[in-house]
Amino acid sequence: MKAVRVYGKQDVRLEDVSIPEPNDDQVQIKVKFCGICGSDLHEYSEGLTLPTKRHPISGKQLPITMGHEFAGEVVKVGKAVTQLKVGDPVAVEPLIACGHCDNCRAGKYNLCENAIGDDGSSNFIGFSDDGGYAEYANIREFFAHKMPAGMSYELGALTEPTTVAYEAIKKSGLREGQTVAVMGAGPIGLLTAVLAKIAGATRVFISDVSKERLQKAKDLGLTDLLNPDETDVTAAIKTAVPGGVDIVYDAAGIQATFDTGIRSVKKAGKVMLIALFAKPITVDVTNRLIMQGLDVLTTLGYNNDYPAVMAIIDQHPDLFNQLITKKIPLDRAIEDGVKTLAVDKSQVKILISPEL
Amino acid sequence: MKAVRVYGKQDVRLEDVSIPEPNDDQVQIKVKFCGICGSDLHEYSEGLTLPTKRHPISGKQLPITMGHEFAGEVVKVGKAVTQLKVGDPVAVEPLIACGHCDNCRAGKYNLCENAIGDDGSSNFIGFSDDGGYAEYANIREFFAHKMPAGMSYELGALTEPTTVAYEAIKKSGLREGQTVAVMGAGPIGLLTAVLAKIAGATRVFISDVSKERLQKAKDLGLTDLLNPDETDVTAAIKTAVPGGVDIVYDAAGIQATFDTGIRSVKKAGKVMLIALFAKPITVDVTNRLIMQGLDVLTTLGYNNDYPAVMAIIDQHPDLFNQLITKKIPLDRAIEDGVKTLAVDKSQVKILISPEL
Ligand SMILES: [Zn+2]
Ligand SMILES: [Zn+2]
Ligand SMILES: [Zn+2]
Ligand SMILES: [Zn+2]
Repeated sequence: MKAVRVYGKQDVRLEDVSIPEPNDDQVQIKVKFCGICGSDLHEYSEGLTLPTKRHPISGKQLPITMGHEFAGEVVKVGKAVTQLKVGDPVAVEPLIACGHCDNCRAGKYNLCENAIGDDGSSNFIGFSDDGGYAEYANIREFFAHKMPAGMSYELGALTEPTTVAYEAIKKSGLREGQTVAVMGAGPIGLLTAVLAKIAGATRVFISDVSKERLQKAKDLGLTDLLNPDETDVTAAIKTAVPGGVDIVYDAAGIQATFDTGIRSVKKAGKVMLIALFAKPITVDVTNRLIMQGLDVLTTLGYNNDYPAVMAIIDQHPDLFNQLITKKIPLDRAIEDGVKTLAVDKSQVKILISPEL
Repeated sequence: MKAVRVYGKQDVRLEDVSIPEPNDDQVQIKVKFCGICGSDLHEYSEGLTLPTKRHPISGKQLPITMGHEFAGEVVKVGKAVTQLKVGDPVAVEPLIACGHCDNCRAGKYNLCENAIGDDGSSNFIGFSDDGGYAEYANIREFFAHKMPAGMSYELGALTEPTTVAYEAIKKSGLREGQTVAVMGAGPIGLLTAVLAKIAGATRVFISDVSKERLQKAKDLGLTDLLNPDETDVTAAIKTAVPGGVDIVYDAAGIQATFDTGIRSVKKAGKVMLIALFAKPITVDVTNRLIMQGLDVLTTLGYNNDYPAVMAIIDQHPDLFNQLITKKIPLDRAIEDGVKTLAVDKSQVKILISPEL
């Protein structure tokens, strides 16, 4: 089968490899669509979170097949598979977990104590185990979720990034009637804002320096659009919501958005960091956190969210379809996908398909 | 009456002032004991959180009578006072709150949206309203808590710092059977460690560079003592508790303790910042927070804790009495109190009394 495999920083190859057999607890999936993520770009350009040795749980080492946002059809099942059958459409929850550490036992399998290594390896399929930039993938049944009847595979592939946003909202404890601000209108920022509205937030501010991205936010029905190049974001938020919003979501991950976030949230509010930060930041803990009563929360992946997220997407197909801006064949994944995402801000979600 | 009043940075005066009448909703307290806090030292030496103009709620401006850790006897009651009567022993919860903002209404009156000004004013009696370094103080009945029968006024004065630690433990969600590490063995660090043991933590690490402070920790029954000058604190913790402790409490507030804390807590653990940080810190958000699934929580003051804390102290009088290392007369508050605290690491809690 064809597979796009990463060998290291800026060394990604389209190769012909044999189709591996699924383990007893795995299903084999014929990949239909796989989204390209900002982190795929970092994986390609900087070699981010690539294992330097055999991963303790997946057993894999470089080269690794990229891609973690995918959906497909079950074409084979291992002997121990009980819930899924050949022909089932599934969205993949691309996590690696041991299943027996304290966090796994507690249902927080996204924070598996044995999956993230000191060598830069991560707990994600597509980084430390073979992913969806291929014709086939073998996935533990536990992490393959049957899609709602009639949902398209394109929307199935959106489940993963939507779940990143969903987990952030869930963990932050957002309640209907509250107000939020989202820093950054990339795919995760847009999804967070859209989900906050679905969750009943009464004001959903979203800020970005890109006019294209704010236009996309507008197309998605968001109305509190802020461009930090043109507006004092904190002042605008506090004029509309005196005291500041209940929760800020940072989906950009830079010093400027962190600073704007902690100034735009109300006393005793929460700041949820979703985006990875490329550089360390400076924090005035006393004046900006403690004296304001703020908590700084983080998310890494998600747990136990896929059924709810698929139901939400299934209920709003037109809304979520607007996030898909391009579909390309598998063999163009790097040239027309990953590299395009780096430069074209009008792109939200590019999907690759082995069947195009 | 005699009162120790701050006029500004390093300008504190022992003065004779008239005894003000209590408002309708206040009780007048004859101060019995008032503890000296590390923040009193900052107030004196750096003018920390002193109002530069009239405080919006207390109506006070400089000079302000210092002191926020005090207990005394009710000697007069305002017309609207209903629960307290002359002769009642009370511990003072030294907060300023408007009573009508969202946080006040929600019971989080320590995070009153109207009490902390942009001018450096705070929501604490002793900083933005007259406190306990005086013979008498007028306190809203809401913030004067009747002490358990038979409790000494010395222990009553310990209620405030103990509550700082209690709130941190409460907000962090510590459960019996969990493990914790406390950075810093000053008064708040010691109290946090002692309360963590009382709350059923099975391992309570405490670290400090001061041998005197670690000796005091030992005297208080703590056994997991760590000196960062002699031991790799994180390595020692992770040897004893593989993966790290459930919760770290930072009662020191410097870059080094923050860094040790985030490395000593387990994946998906919590870091609770209690101490004020004198300087901004640098945080590697991606690798040290997000990839570890950590949340960074803060506390500022406390709410609805005084009855529980007084009950705890009342149940362990010998333990808490060990924290009182010196008692001095009111007129020696600065020379033998605040200044001594700055240099003598063997001091934990120095109490002043107008009656000595
Ligand atoms: Zn992604
Ligand atoms: Zn695990
Ligand atoms: Zn204090
Ligand atoms: Zn208030």
